[in-house]
Amino acid sequence: MLENVIIIGAGPAAYTAAIYTARAELKPLVFEGFLAGGIPAGGQLMTTSEIENFPGFPDGISGPELMMNMRQQALNCGARIESKTIDRAGLSDSPFLVGCETEEYQCRSLIIATGATARRLKIAGEDRLWQKGISACAVCDGALPMFRNKPLVVIGGGDSAVEEALYLSKFASKVHLIHRRESLRASKAMQKRLLENDRIEIVWNHIPVEAVGDKFLTGVKIRDVKDHSEKIIESSGLFYAVGHIPNTIFLNNQLEMDDLGYIVTRAGTTHTSKIGVFACGDVQDKRYRQAITAAGSGCMAAIDCEHFLSEE
Amino acid sequence: MLENVIIIGAGPAAYTAAIYTARAELKPLVFEGFLAGGIPAGGQLMTTSEIENFPGFPDGISGPELMMNMRQQALNCGARIESKTIDRAGLSDSPFLVGCETEEYQCRSLIIATGATARRLKIAGEDRLWQKGISACAVCDGALPMFRNKPLVVIGGGDSAVEEALYLSKFASKVHLIHRRESLRASKAMQKRLLENDRIEIVWNHIPVEAVGDKFLTGVKIRDVKDHSEKIIESSGLFYAVGHIPNTIFLNNQLEMDDLGYIVTRAGTTHTSKIGVFACGDVQDKRYRQAITAAGSGCMAAIDCEHFLSEE
Repeated sequence: MLENVIIIGAGPAAYTAAIYTARAELKPLVFEGFLAGGIPAGGQLMTTSEIENFPGFPDGISGPELMMNMRQQALNCGARIESKTIDRAGLSDSPFLVGCETEEYQCRSLIIATGATARRLKIAGEDRLWQKGISACAVCDGALPMFRNKPLVVIGGGDSAVEEALYLSKFASKVHLIHRRESLRASKAMQKRLLENDRIEIVWNHIPVEAVGDKFLTGVKIRDVKDHSEKIIESSGLFYAVGHIPNTIFLNNQLEMDDLGYIVTRAGTTHTSKIGVFACGDVQDKRYRQAITAAGSGCMAAIDCEHFLSEE
Repeated sequence: MLENVIIIGAGPAAYTAAIYTARAELKPLVFEGFLAGGIPAGGQLMTTSEIENFPGFPDGISGPELMMNMRQQALNCGARIESKTIDRAGLSDSPFLVGCETEEYQCRSLIIATGATARRLKIAGEDRLWQKGISACAVCDGALPMFRNKPLVVIGGGDSAVEEALYLSKFASKVHLIHRRESLRASKAMQKRLLENDRIEIVWNHIPVEAVGDKFLTGVKIRDVKDHSEKIIESSGLFYAVGHIPNTIFLNNQLEMDDLGYIVTRAGTTHTSKIGVFACGDVQDKRYRQAITAAGSGCMAAIDCEHFLSEE
């Protein structure tokens, strides 16, 4: 069966694209994945407790509730949703092909909304203590009781690392920012705010080597990159702020991507380098990366897609 | 007093920009206007009864309720909102100036989210029967009881005119689409759907000249552009689909605009031709024009603005 449009993804971009293409009577088929990218359907928001900045919810809404709302709305509008993980795509000719283990699906147009996954450091103890003190999102988890008035560690040197350290300093007794170099990539203004904050201490020229703890994280072993000496910093939380990886490996370089693997879209649209293939959400956005911007671009992809199909 | 950021507007873009700049502790000052552009604070959605495509609300939400939610959320986050209409701006040097009658305000950065207003035809009877049978939004008003199983008229020849005619054909006994030319600008696929719909009749080479009716619209007088003959089409509804006008006149051409008056933004961002001045929502978007895309671009403007101020 030839589908009008297949949507791959399960975050705000994917579900918004599904809502709009369903209302346009395109009968979209959505593959939300089964733990694709290591996260459940619903995307990165599924591990976000409270969202205060998605417009329309003055008292905030939990990440899982917002995503369940969007998913239900897509179903109400007539979208079909399959919990399968697409692991390959054939984009050389129309109709396009996408595959999932032994199954293949054909479509006239394709919307890619597979998002991005927080980068991990792969240090000792990481897997065992993940979400037991280790987190990739300070804004998501920082306000949890387990981190209140406790010493915390942040890894990274860019704007987001500095932002996370500043954010955590509102809850923590102390924040150690561990950075492998002796200067920060973050902007001057951000650095100034950081240096003025007496709850934050920057540990230069160090890398983390081990997450220490039994059932929960109790410390982080770090190594001096110059003299290779090691020490343990007592900590109840270890926050990674070392970037994200866009979920584009299954595309096998059939679309134009930037040097970090993000899909390149024609600016101000969701058109990719292949006519009939559209991208929206974090898989093509390393700048804004918000639920509301992802949702907006999902709507754009649906409108671009509808226009493409009506002109085809 | 020098403000960090002033936001002009009162739709999804403006309130989302307010939520994000407030959470970034920029203490934004929002001028939502007093019937600016002929519409109440809240923007075009204030005349939209039910919105089914704003993601997060699986059972839909009314336009006014969604906008009141966003406004309250901006207040909860710490934004200050003034119900004044900005009627001029001084953008030649930083700090920028905006003015309202006798008052002036200074700001380090400015976010323009003043939206667009549906174009009117200025025919006889229009003012008297506006919202008494005349509407600029079929999707907003088409499902009202006063239009059910009644003959209706749509004016226009572009995609949105065809879309509105198709939409209204679900409710009306008959839809007359009046077009001044003898071909449509709408896409081939849209025209095909139009011609296949036996509830829709296209009246070529005619223009509307008068809205007829006492308390409510009862008919539309149209004129043949070739032989100048006139006739009245019986109708309970007259729907304008003749485009929108971006609300940019108060800027007095101090920013780069396109030939329709829309603010030009650097694609994929909200940067205007003036550093420190940002634009979001329908005032810079004639392509997507949805509540969710406007909200997404409001978030982008806030992030662009915060970045500008932190680097300043």
